[in-house]
Amino acid sequence: MRVKLTLAYDGTAFAGWQIQARAAGPRPRTVQGCLEAALERICGAPVRAHGAGRTDAGVHAEGQVAHCDVPETRAGLDWVRALNGNLDEDVRVLAAEPVPPDFHARYAALSKTYTYRIWLSRRYVLPTRRHFVWATGPLDQEAMDAAARRLEGEHDFAAFQNTGTEVRSTVRTVARIERFCAAPGVPDGYGPATAELPEPPEGPEALEWCWRFTADGFLKQMVRNLMGCLVEVGRGRLAPDAAAAILARGDRTRAPATAPARGLCLTRVRYPA
Amino acid sequence: MRVKLTLAYDGTAFAGWQIQARAAGPRPRTVQGCLEAALERICGAPVRAHGAGRTDAGVHAEGQVAHCDVPETRAGLDWVRALNGNLDEDVRVLAAEPVPPDFHARYAALSKTYTYRIWLSRRYVLPTRRHFVWATGPLDQEAMDAAARRLEGEHDFAAFQNTGTEVRSTVRTVARIERFCAAPGVPDGYGPATAELPEPPEGPEALEWCWRFTADGFLKQMVRNLMGCLVEVGRGRLAPDAAAAILARGDRTRAPATAPARGLCLTRVRYPA
Repeated sequence: MRVKLTLAYDGTAFAGWQIQARAAGPRPRTVQGCLEAALERICGAPVRAHGAGRTDAGVHAEGQVAHCDVPETRAGLDWVRALNGNLDEDVRVLAAEPVPPDFHARYAALSKTYTYRIWLSRRYVLPTRRHFVWATGPLDQEAMDAAARRLEGEHDFAAFQNTGTEVRSTVRTVARIERFCAAPGVPDGYGPATAELPEPPEGPEALEWCWRFTADGFLKQMVRNLMGCLVEVGRGRLAPDAAAAILARGDRTRAPATAPARGLCLTRVRYPA
Repeated sequence: MRVKLTLAYDGTAFAGWQIQARAAGPRPRTVQGCLEAALERICGAPVRAHGAGRTDAGVHAEGQVAHCDVPETRAGLDWVRALNGNLDEDVRVLAAEPVPPDFHARYAALSKTYTYRIWLSRRYVLPTRRHFVWATGPLDQEAMDAAARRLEGEHDFAAFQNTGTEVRSTVRTVARIERFCAAPGVPDGYGPATAELPEPPEGPEALEWCWRFTADGFLKQMVRNLMGCLVEVGRGRLAPDAAAAILARGDRTRAPATAPARGLCLTRVRYPA
């Protein structure tokens, strides 16, 4: 009996999604490892969990999807409740549903959405947000918008792929790169801006911004590499048109550096209805 | 030379604001203690920091205010930069400004605003929000609104004061209790709701809500006690009118329990212009 799980995690204390083999020493703590341990406790036998995306160490998720095959004897179980009762608080199951036996979290995915959060002050990061943003300092986000338009669409993203995973093709279709303010005008929370709230210390805009990337698939560390490129544009070190040139060149070694893991969150995976 | 500091902290790993004397064993880690240690490193001599509010262990701040007297020889210093370079990342200085020598962070405050965050699902708490919300489960927030209206205004709040701090009077004026959705319709982030995002699993509303309390001053654990009362109303265990009866009775022992510290954040302190 196959079950589809929707998962959220705070990636700060995880060595990423994927279970890692280690010759010696303790096994790194991974999301897959914790999930499989909880499944084994519930099912009484080892259960493999297959994730839609292998998020890196420090990367968060609010909509990771995994599937697993569980014994028929557990058919009536409330999986959300059972799993959350057996998992640490930094990983939660948001939803669980039975799926046909040919459903595959990774291969059946139509698209994935990642959100990258940046913080526009170098003076400080709000402590409650420090594990979830990249503090870049002030950026020209309009220039970044222009660069983002050049990255959307079907391209060979070889220049934005880090090594370590073999893929048949490095062509992907980035449907959209969207930008929105995480906390409109409100440095003190996530509510609506009102005239009574203080202005953010460094300007009229809020300090936290989300960049949301949707594609049919992503190469290894592709979102972090795209974001690294966009931030270079925002800092004025790269013209918006340079994004197209980097794509065309296809050379990772001549592209901007990878953005930090902590700003990234796997937000959503879509499947055929 | 007196300096006014605006501070933010993640209260999770702090034993509250105030330095605590201990007969034996290591001193608890406090915000005031960390701030004074940083001030001493910068100034070369002990410096006392006076906070506007003595937040409890686990309570957060995004707009705490403190004042301190620093040597004239440090007049030209960039205090935000110097202090943030000497503080752990879970406490940050957002702003610093010179003030007249009679300014006092606590006694000069006209009003304070606290935000209490609740999470309306008992099935899960989003891991990235787990240190910052109280997971109450579903609540009748309209009933809570009605109760909140009865708590606003000038009242004797003795029933909402925990023991431990002596005060001359337990009369305070609660100017406003406001409620707003932290993440309108968006379980996956803090951006605008769009038709493409998934519905929150337990209903059409978003799961995180902010309750914002503004008063001329608060008694010990008063916001947490008010919130504890409001949540009892939201659970249907108390009628909205009962809030007025609890106020009138003035008996803490017969009022609802104190809400958890982690949902609370000192958001803003106001002073005469």
